[in-house]
Amino acid sequence: MKRPLIVQKFGGTSVGSVERIHNVAEHVIRAKNSGKQVVVVVSAMSGETNRLVELAKQVDKVPNVRELDVLLSAGEQISMALLSMTLCKLGYSAVSLTGGQARITTNNHHNNATISDIDTSVIDDHLAQDKIVIVAGFQGINEIGDITTLGRGGSDTTAVTLAGALNAEECQIFTDVDGVYSCDPRVVGAAKKLDTIDFPTMHAMAYKGAKVLHMPCVTYAWEHQVPLRVLSSFEAGNGTLVAGNDPQPGIGGLAIQKQMMALTIDTAHVDLVDKQKQMLGVEESLWVTDSAYNHLVVKLDCCDKLKMVIDDKIVVEQEVALLTLVGRQAIEQASQYQQLLNLSDISVLHFCEDKHSITLVLEPGTIDKAANVLHDNYIITSESVERAEKQVHLG
Amino acid sequence: MKRPLIVQKFGGTSVGSVERIHNVAEHVIRAKNSGKQVVVVVSAMSGETNRLVELAKQVDKVPNVRELDVLLSAGEQISMALLSMTLCKLGYSAVSLTGGQARITTNNHHNNATISDIDTSVIDDHLAQDKIVIVAGFQGINEIGDITTLGRGGSDTTAVTLAGALNAEECQIFTDVDGVYSCDPRVVGAAKKLDTIDFPTMHAMAYKGAKVLHMPCVTYAWEHQVPLRVLSSFEAGNGTLVAGNDPQPGIGGLAIQKQMMALTIDTAHVDLVDKQKQMLGVEESLWVTDSAYNHLVVKLDCCDKLKMVIDDKIVVEQEVALLTLVGRQAIEQASQYQQLLNLSDISVLHFCEDKHSITLVLEPGTIDKAANVLHDNYIITSESVERAEKQVHLG
Repeated sequence: MKRPLIVQKFGGTSVGSVERIHNVAEHVIRAKNSGKQVVVVVSAMSGETNRLVELAKQVDKVPNVRELDVLLSAGEQISMALLSMTLCKLGYSAVSLTGGQARITTNNHHNNATISDIDTSVIDDHLAQDKIVIVAGFQGINEIGDITTLGRGGSDTTAVTLAGALNAEECQIFTDVDGVYSCDPRVVGAAKKLDTIDFPTMHAMAYKGAKVLHMPCVTYAWEHQVPLRVLSSFEAGNGTLVAGNDPQPGIGGLAIQKQMMALTIDTAHVDLVDKQKQMLGVEESLWVTDSAYNHLVVKLDCCDKLKMVIDDKIVVEQEVALLTLVGRQAIEQASQYQQLLNLSDISVLHFCEDKHSITLVLEPGTIDKAANVLHDNYIITSESVERAEKQVHLG
Repeated sequence: MKRPLIVQKFGGTSVGSVERIHNVAEHVIRAKNSGKQVVVVVSAMSGETNRLVELAKQVDKVPNVRELDVLLSAGEQISMALLSMTLCKLGYSAVSLTGGQARITTNNHHNNATISDIDTSVIDDHLAQDKIVIVAGFQGINEIGDITTLGRGGSDTTAVTLAGALNAEECQIFTDVDGVYSCDPRVVGAAKKLDTIDFPTMHAMAYKGAKVLHMPCVTYAWEHQVPLRVLSSFEAGNGTLVAGNDPQPGIGGLAIQKQMMALTIDTAHVDLVDKQKQMLGVEESLWVTDSAYNHLVVKLDCCDKLKMVIDDKIVVEQEVALLTLVGRQAIEQASQYQQLLNLSDISVLHFCEDKHSITLVLEPGTIDKAANVLHDNYIITSESVERAEKQVHLG
């Protein structure tokens, strides 16, 4: 049984100025006035983290990791205090807590720590006094009381972990888009905002390039059954609810990854390359196997450091783009994709299957058209139906 | 028996940029290399506190006091992390601690708290590991773990209280002047830098307008017998050592207070005015009594709010300036001051005696000349002797 409590998370852009913090306060007050308890997680004001990193780099290109965490954690301390002040000014009782004060304990991995425990007693005490509780995102303390930070997407992680620990009925991630889309709307104009999306589809979408939610956040929410809602800070609307464990029938969404590099490597060297890849911390890579060769697809921006150590093992290299179809029927329809894309003169270099998804390796110049063709045919929106009808008449 | 440990305090100007922090690190390293343990107290980078106050005022003219402390305390967190990084970069083992991490406990008076206790165990642990310990000045936590700040001169207070708690052999206050002067050198060109000054003289000087050290810092150092040293961050030199309990013979120094207002009040209303003064928190005021009236001298900038409540009790008001002579012989020579100043057409409006000091109430336009005349006659410097000789020859 969930508790009548909402966790709301606001990113750096949402708290980027005193005016925007006022706007955030209105979202918070709306939730509070609906009768729920409210816990708010905030990032540093946009630009602030960069300012602090810049100061640190002036001191040392590779600053001491413990002290970098002390420095960066000041960023959220500023935004949380300003939000709490704003709520107080508007007549609400609010209190802000650093990661340490909120008793968020992490491991000792400075700059990229993982939350190990949240003792909610301090937060619970404040909630019992009818206060709105603001918690600094992205930060915690380790076992000896040193400040730690969580790394990329850390504030989302703080929010969802708090929601889990507090048994919240919903964790709302406020961002600069109004929800999760069936595909990147900058590429596919007909992409539709989804009212709901299940965890396995969202997880695969995030894993395969959808930027709206960070992977660890989705993983935690799924594992702990915390309903997530993605909303816009700047526009009204119900956003997208991420909940449910069964993928919907058909194709739930398309994810796009541009600026990728396919490195073709002799099968004999795959284990060695895998080891180097791990040592260098190359993430979000993909192995595609065909009869003679293995193709390793990695992000362009981490390709150079990998090439420095495995250059002599690379047979061919080629820039590519990835299009992933996610959903229960994604794999079984694979042969149709090739046929459809052939009609538009697009060839698929490789296919790569996962549990509920299939990834098409494409030439970079063809990705946008391929995404539109497959979206039009497999994701049914009112616009795509209309367009299909028009095409029939024109034909 | 004092411990071979130095506490060094650097103000906002001293840590105002990454370059200046590097300069601070060199001072710290010099102390460390001399074989001492070193604890460093830092203020926020100059400008940073103002930036944060400005943000708070954009939210609310009178921001929530608890949250203002959360906000402001981020300032020292930034400077302490940058200093610690700099020391690490230079090959020294250093660690920075917030007020809370350093276990500095205060009362609950947000924005103007008083340190109630320092548990030095965390600092001692780090010192035992041969680390340089950097502590955020100006801040602590109250009994329930909320962040508090100490108000004006707070970082000096942190430094001297830490020096007391750690039984340090010296507390060094680095500032933008090279020591304590016999008088404000901007007014009296012949003012000399003092190598040493005793606590009672320093205390009276600070109380009567010398800006170099804050009163609570001097009071604490005297009470706990912590030797203080005032030094320049930017120039080499031994500064001024503040130590010893007996005032030196003669006059130790002159203190100047400009922009003061003398309010003449009927004797019948003195108690009432005193009460209002306390309620409004009017500090650094002075009562001067003559046969018929009481003259209350207050700072010009707090005069307006006082006048709002006691306007009908004021008989006369007049802008004045105060010149205080501090030292064992300060009072007994009082009649000579009047004679000397008369020779320069300066009249003394009132005299006001304290334990080891006498304050002359003067017309604002005469204070600079009066200070020079009395300094030349009562504070012996090589320059003043030379000048006196010249005057004899000319005469």
